[in-house]
Amino acid sequence: MADFFSTVSESTVRNRSMVCVGLDPAMAKIPERFRSAEHPFFEFNRMIIDATRDLVCCYKPQAAFYAGEGLDKDLAMTIDYIHGSAPGIPVILDVKRGDIGSTAEQYAREAFERYGADAVTVNPYMGFDALKPFLDHADKGVIILCRTSNPHSGDLQNLVCDGRPLYQHVAELARDRWNYNHNAALVVGATYPEELALLRKMCPAMPFLVPGVGAQGGDVEAVVRNGAIGRGGLMINSSRGIIYAADPRAAAEKLRSTIETCLE
Amino acid sequence: MADFFSTVSESTVRNRSMVCVGLDPAMAKIPERFRSAEHPFFEFNRMIIDATRDLVCCYKPQAAFYAGEGLDKDLAMTIDYIHGSAPGIPVILDVKRGDIGSTAEQYAREAFERYGADAVTVNPYMGFDALKPFLDHADKGVIILCRTSNPHSGDLQNLVCDGRPLYQHVAELARDRWNYNHNAALVVGATYPEELALLRKMCPAMPFLVPGVGAQGGDVEAVVRNGAIGRGGLMINSSRGIIYAADPRAAAEKLRSTIETCLE
Repeated sequence: MADFFSTVSESTVRNRSMVCVGLDPAMAKIPERFRSAEHPFFEFNRMIIDATRDLVCCYKPQAAFYAGEGLDKDLAMTIDYIHGSAPGIPVILDVKRGDIGSTAEQYAREAFERYGADAVTVNPYMGFDALKPFLDHADKGVIILCRTSNPHSGDLQNLVCDGRPLYQHVAELARDRWNYNHNAALVVGATYPEELALLRKMCPAMPFLVPGVGAQGGDVEAVVRNGAIGRGGLMINSSRGIIYAADPRAAAEKLRSTIETCLE
Repeated sequence: MADFFSTVSESTVRNRSMVCVGLDPAMAKIPERFRSAEHPFFEFNRMIIDATRDLVCCYKPQAAFYAGEGLDKDLAMTIDYIHGSAPGIPVILDVKRGDIGSTAEQYAREAFERYGADAVTVNPYMGFDALKPFLDHADKGVIILCRTSNPHSGDLQNLVCDGRPLYQHVAELARDRWNYNHNAALVVGATYPEELALLRKMCPAMPFLVPGVGAQGGDVEAVVRNGAIGRGGLMINSSRGIIYAADPRAAAEKLRSTIETCLE
């Protein structure tokens, strides 16, 4: 596979889609027929992947859901299955790591070697040396938390430092100092569309991973209008809204077509 | 076991120790005789635990080292072994988690139920709702990254917001808004002893986990002088300096006695 961002650009064009499906299964929520399987989350994900692989630009499993159940094997099988059955569709492992250099190296190994992910989410609080072991993998995407979608994200991210909120400093660091391999991107929540517009102005060429549409209430139209670069530049994540829909394919199609409409 | 901080206070008194041993094994560094074992990191850790359990106030396995090798089972066995063989010595699982509420709940389950840890490290960048699922466990310790020991920790942590560096805002949030169950603590690196003194003034009753002595070059004397609350209040972590010492027991004893000397 080529580098992560080229691959996403291509899948975005090929599938006419900026949809990222979040593979975040919970035992209490997946249909009962999967629960007794030896690999319940993998079997569930396989159903979702088979239903959506021509409608998405990427997949994003959230590591917590597998770790909480001790189903790491299901996570590995899911990533392998995507690579095997949906060639050219990359996988973002959502782990939000951040630790000192020697430890971050271990986490980079976990994400890229053990699981074979194509990109990873990371937390910027500890600074550059916590990100470098990820950024050094030029072919992998490193998606840095910037302005997150959750209700209390402003506790730190909106503190005003030298005249600008902290999250803008993160964007600037990502753009000017951390993007030496052209493999950095930002996490920007759909729940803050005006800040998304501002960040797009600051970082006109940087891909954004956008969680927070669907269950969290973000407005797809505002996200696309404020964040798209031409017909790309965004990976708009929906998890619960697609994977637990009565018809996951129809739900993914609907999100894709809502996005398309906003582009016209 | 009682709540985490009572347990640490008691082990600090009982073992006359503020030493936290970091159980961070790396395959290339552990003695060769362990490498071929079915559970190499567990066997190595057992040797370290047997040699040090009367000299420490707590243990801190760094999850990355196990995850990078796919040796999660060794991590679980290590925590079980500490609880069985060193009753009253709590375990901090160093994972530096931070994610939105529903995801953080999964991580809390992982740390406290799957692994049975007594405390966990967390990242504050996403704000309160990312920490709440941990803080809600009143009997567990929640140790929040504040001023970390790594070289680029100032990239964000030293940005001046409303007249004070970001890390001081984190300390204030931890003290005034996040400590509703009296189970919050801070990570404060030994490599910044003046900032440690400042944080101790801001948070006179809050325990600090202090990484960065030993391999990272922090000064034990300055840490104790600037951070101790009486004969406690600190968990001073050493990993490589103890676990890879020719005589790990002697190395732990030496650190304990250096700390004791500073208290006199």
